[in-house]
Amino acid sequence: MNEFEIIKKYFAWDNQEKDHPELAVGVGDDCALIELSKLKGTLAITTDTLVEGVHFFKESNPLLLACKALLVNLSDLAAMGARPLFFTLSLVLTEKEYQNLRFIEALSRGFKTQAREAGIALVGGNLSKGSEFSITISIFGECEHKLLRSKALVNDLIFVTGNLGAPALYVEYGYKRVNLERSLKGEASYKFFKPNLRTDFAYQAAHLIHSAIDISDGLVGDLKHILRQSKVGALIRLKRLPVDLLLEKAHLNFEQQLSLSLFGGGDYELIFTVKQDKRLLKELYQIAKKTNTKLSLIGRITDKKEILEVKEPYGKALLDKGFEFVHF
Amino acid sequence: MNEFEIIKKYFAWDNQEKDHPELAVGVGDDCALIELSKLKGTLAITTDTLVEGVHFFKESNPLLLACKALLVNLSDLAAMGARPLFFTLSLVLTEKEYQNLRFIEALSRGFKTQAREAGIALVGGNLSKGSEFSITISIFGECEHKLLRSKALVNDLIFVTGNLGAPALYVEYGYKRVNLERSLKGEASYKFFKPNLRTDFAYQAAHLIHSAIDISDGLVGDLKHILRQSKVGALIRLKRLPVDLLLEKAHLNFEQQLSLSLFGGGDYELIFTVKQDKRLLKELYQIAKKTNTKLSLIGRITDKKEILEVKEPYGKALLDKGFEFVHF
Repeated sequence: MNEFEIIKKYFAWDNQEKDHPELAVGVGDDCALIELSKLKGTLAITTDTLVEGVHFFKESNPLLLACKALLVNLSDLAAMGARPLFFTLSLVLTEKEYQNLRFIEALSRGFKTQAREAGIALVGGNLSKGSEFSITISIFGECEHKLLRSKALVNDLIFVTGNLGAPALYVEYGYKRVNLERSLKGEASYKFFKPNLRTDFAYQAAHLIHSAIDISDGLVGDLKHILRQSKVGALIRLKRLPVDLLLEKAHLNFEQQLSLSLFGGGDYELIFTVKQDKRLLKELYQIAKKTNTKLSLIGRITDKKEILEVKEPYGKALLDKGFEFVHF
Repeated sequence: MNEFEIIKKYFAWDNQEKDHPELAVGVGDDCALIELSKLKGTLAITTDTLVEGVHFFKESNPLLLACKALLVNLSDLAAMGARPLFFTLSLVLTEKEYQNLRFIEALSRGFKTQAREAGIALVGGNLSKGSEFSITISIFGECEHKLLRSKALVNDLIFVTGNLGAPALYVEYGYKRVNLERSLKGEASYKFFKPNLRTDFAYQAAHLIHSAIDISDGLVGDLKHILRQSKVGALIRLKRLPVDLLLEKAHLNFEQQLSLSLFGGGDYELIFTVKQDKRLLKELYQIAKKTNTKLSLIGRITDKKEILEVKEPYGKALLDKGFEFVHF
């Protein structure tokens, strides 16, 4: 099959226009067209690329990989408080994958399944041959209450969604730095490829949140973006970190667990700050419950510019070790 | 330098927000945000990837390459009649390029120059390491009169902008299938990397045009998309094709010239159809003059569904040769 035939067979999905009245023209012309009058607020745009051997291991499951490629971008929209609507997809396949229709079908199924789950429509894309497999996705959403990295205020409470560390554990396993029995490996792999979708929670809770970011590079590194752009500090209670139970099951000691949860990355959970106010917090927890979102209160914003503090002594020892970007 | 430092130094440009009042948040948060209320009509989105060794030769000039990566996407917006506003940029660099700051600077300069020329702002992107150099760009624009492939009408006149064949000549040279002396090579290379920007012409003339497409895969293949989607045929006068003079200078015979102009591709000129009406045509030519756009009337739309006809006998011989997608 040539490029056009593959796109027609695997990437031109039905019923998209029906579910998305904003979509005037979808796949099949020079551009997609979206009716601006049917969108609210501002348009949020984000883009990300996954490269084989860099962002995922060779021979990864194509269906899960397609999900992940969408989820890392959806996570950026969640961090902005935006509701996702559309995406474009650029695939570079090697000759081997290009000839493997079962592989392409699994990719297509992953994109389709995850897109349906997130309520987004594919509006454009392209397929190229190359010597390295990569996926570039751009997602567009509408945003009514935008969550900026620069709006954290002193005394805000700091929350994180979900659990931390499992995706980093999978990466450690992939590099043969830890050992995992089969069932744990499966679980870690699933959490690496299928991070939780936090867009519903973030969109609904956006009016309560001051500042947010998603955890791609690790909690510490990403929280530092908020501190820098908001010109504030943070005090983190390490004991409250929602470390994934999988890390204990894998026989990691407490320091290793903390290390993966703080610096591992790939969690695609949200860190966000909220004013300490009973009424707001009550509403926040209601939205969390409705959207099946676990929340952990891990600390608060301080006035010590860009300084990240921990009280527990093992915290300081851990944080000092080889992480030059953390100042004390 | 790490990813963040490179982005900050080379891809965070000044004054973008000033020139683009629609841009609420640019590079530096999780997503870019665009004020929808400041845009008109529909939002047009297009995306394309260029892979080294596939879409351009290795060791290509990075500055020109950056221009081309933007221009191929701008060309899709022109084919839709949209005015370009924003773009996102995903770069995959090999270790060698990543370490070569002069290379990155040249790339950055190319993107910046071409973006300014087209009046578009960079609103997001990412930088990855990989084993293959590639560039993925998405461009967004506003569209008041959309030009679809499906709206060509019987008896419409068929026009093409600019000249044809020079980019294909450069590709032939790259594969050592033709020889070019130095000055001709430079000219062909420039035309390959810097196709004409047709967005101004297309946006201004959109209300006069029935149907349009840009020439990426070759005039015949791309015109066939219009014929198929509009359920019409076309009669082309081969003698009227605006074959680039460079092809004669390179000592190609007439048949070779026609072949590159019809099937070569990479021209990124527009094919469009217009009602045969004196008043409309006068206005069309006025806009062409104002926007420095050469127009050639190359044929007309017929009622012979998906049939592409030529009258000249050498045409039939040429078209029959090895191009199975052309039906007679």
